[in-house]
Amino acid sequence: MTLLYEGKAKRMFETGDPFVLEVEYKDEVTAGNGLRHDFAPGKGRLINLITSDIFGRLEDAGIPSHFIEKTGETTQLVRRVDMIPMEVVVRNLAAGNIIDRLGFKKGEEFAPPLVEFFLKDDSLGDPLLTRAHVIHMDIASHDEIDELRKRANQINVALIDIMEKMGLQLVDFKIEFGRDKKGNILLADEISPDTCRIWDVGTGENFDKDVYREKTGSIVDTYQKFYEKMKETK
Amino acid sequence: MTLLYEGKAKRMFETGDPFVLEVEYKDEVTAGNGLRHDFAPGKGRLINLITSDIFGRLEDAGIPSHFIEKTGETTQLVRRVDMIPMEVVVRNLAAGNIIDRLGFKKGEEFAPPLVEFFLKDDSLGDPLLTRAHVIHMDIASHDEIDELRKRANQINVALIDIMEKMGLQLVDFKIEFGRDKKGNILLADEISPDTCRIWDVGTGENFDKDVYREKTGSIVDTYQKFYEKMKETK
Ligand SMILES: Nc1ncnc2c1ncn2[C@@H]1O[C@H](COP(=O)(O)OP(=O)(O)O)[C@@H](O)[C@H]1O
Ligand SMILES: Nc1ncnc2c1ncn2[C@@H]1O[C@H](COP(=O)(O)OP(=O)(O)O)[C@@H](O)[C@H]1O
Ligand SMILES: [Mg+2]
Ligand SMILES: [Mg+2]
Repeated sequence: MTLLYEGKAKRMFETGDPFVLEVEYKDEVTAGNGLRHDFAPGKGRLINLITSDIFGRLEDAGIPSHFIEKTGETTQLVRRVDMIPMEVVVRNLAAGNIIDRLGFKKGEEFAPPLVEFFLKDDSLGDPLLTRAHVIHMDIASHDEIDELRKRANQINVALIDIMEKMGLQLVDFKIEFGRDKKGNILLADEISPDTCRIWDVGTGENFDKDVYREKTGSIVDTYQKFYEKMKETK
Repeated sequence: MTLLYEGKAKRMFETGDPFVLEVEYKDEVTAGNGLRHDFAPGKGRLINLITSDIFGRLEDAGIPSHFIEKTGETTQLVRRVDMIPMEVVVRNLAAGNIIDRLGFKKGEEFAPPLVEFFLKDDSLGDPLLTRAHVIHMDIASHDEIDELRKRANQINVALIDIMEKMGLQLVDFKIEFGRDKKGNILLADEISPDTCRIWDVGTGENFDKDVYREKTGSIVDTYQKFYEKMKETK
């Protein structure tokens, strides 16, 4: 199989079918726009298990995605899409970069949830985009922006439900979308503790990549615990 | 008269009338969020002349503002408003921070003009705001955001007209708005070469604060030349 693209967390391979890609999740973790980089044996398998499970549950909730099926320990098949070069961030509580950026207090509630668009461009540091920027840069149309926002909110509701059953609070998350061959928008990429911020409802403990960013715990152990909680609510 | 507020460029004094303030423009210039600071004798007088003239012409064009009248060399009376803590930026061509921020090329055209809102907060470095931020932070309502955007575009059309007659191209500008006692939105603060980016149509020469930012000329001489061009088109 031909390697199409290697990113920070996964490799995308072409398959016999031009509309299908194989994703291989890597045992690597990065932070600070690639400034920190470590090997984390076992992480690829856990992300693959978790994101496959989550995309399956989202499909049950009526939310279409690129996910087809898990094919191995660290691999899955997905529908190939033209990625929309944005990171769509949904925030239920203030945490992370929005605190320094806008002066919000950690844990401050957003009601309704705050949806933000960032340009997916490492060299520019993933800058914040307004609707006017998205239109001017020809990234998405007005209708598509509305659709992305609607999907982001639906996904938030579904994810909150999944996490609540696990005794966890969904603080924020990042998603990416693409367009399939017909131009339909599909949720793509991954949803996992690598792309969400998740707090234990009781203890406030992190069940996410912040244990790596803030050096407060083992990322593989944390994702393992998250996965076990998830299996219990199957 | 009691000093109400001293900013980087002007002093605001209370007058006998609780709804009227006196503005005194200072002979000072700053850049880089106050990092550079210089005295520029004669600048206060020129800004006062220019912004008074521009606000007068905007009024003729049907655009309401806080401006009442020029009362002295460096002073004017304005309607006191509750400032909306945002800098509204209108861009016709790409220049300044948007180039590094979003990777636009200098001089790239925005059609329609790009309107951006920034939180007026020096300690946060005046961060970009989306509509959702403005609503969540209770800075303005949806209708007010629409109104600010409409006014910003009207002011852009009127300013382009003023500058075109002077052989100048309006690249971008920053404005601030406030609410009067009835809650009506009024253009406030100033419009001058300190708050606009203006290029000579023929030579590309700067007629704005960039001569200070980029150390390419005397700010007072530049503003004097701008004022003389303006008088010729009276
Ligand atoms: N279904 C898909 N079709 C095509 N590309 C995809 C799909 N899902 C994800 N991608 C892209 O695959 C790339 C690899 O992912 P990742 O390793 O996370 O990269 P990055 O470091 O750029 O975030 C990303 O650019 C992502 O947007
Ligand atoms: N009509 C008005 N009523 C009340 N405040 C005003 C009015 N016009 C301008 N201001 C405010 O006066 C302050 C002084 O201006 P300036 O010296 O430019 O300050 P800054 O350094 O904060 O930009 C600013 O906070 C500005 O928003
Ligand atoms: Mg990624
Ligand atoms: Mg000012």
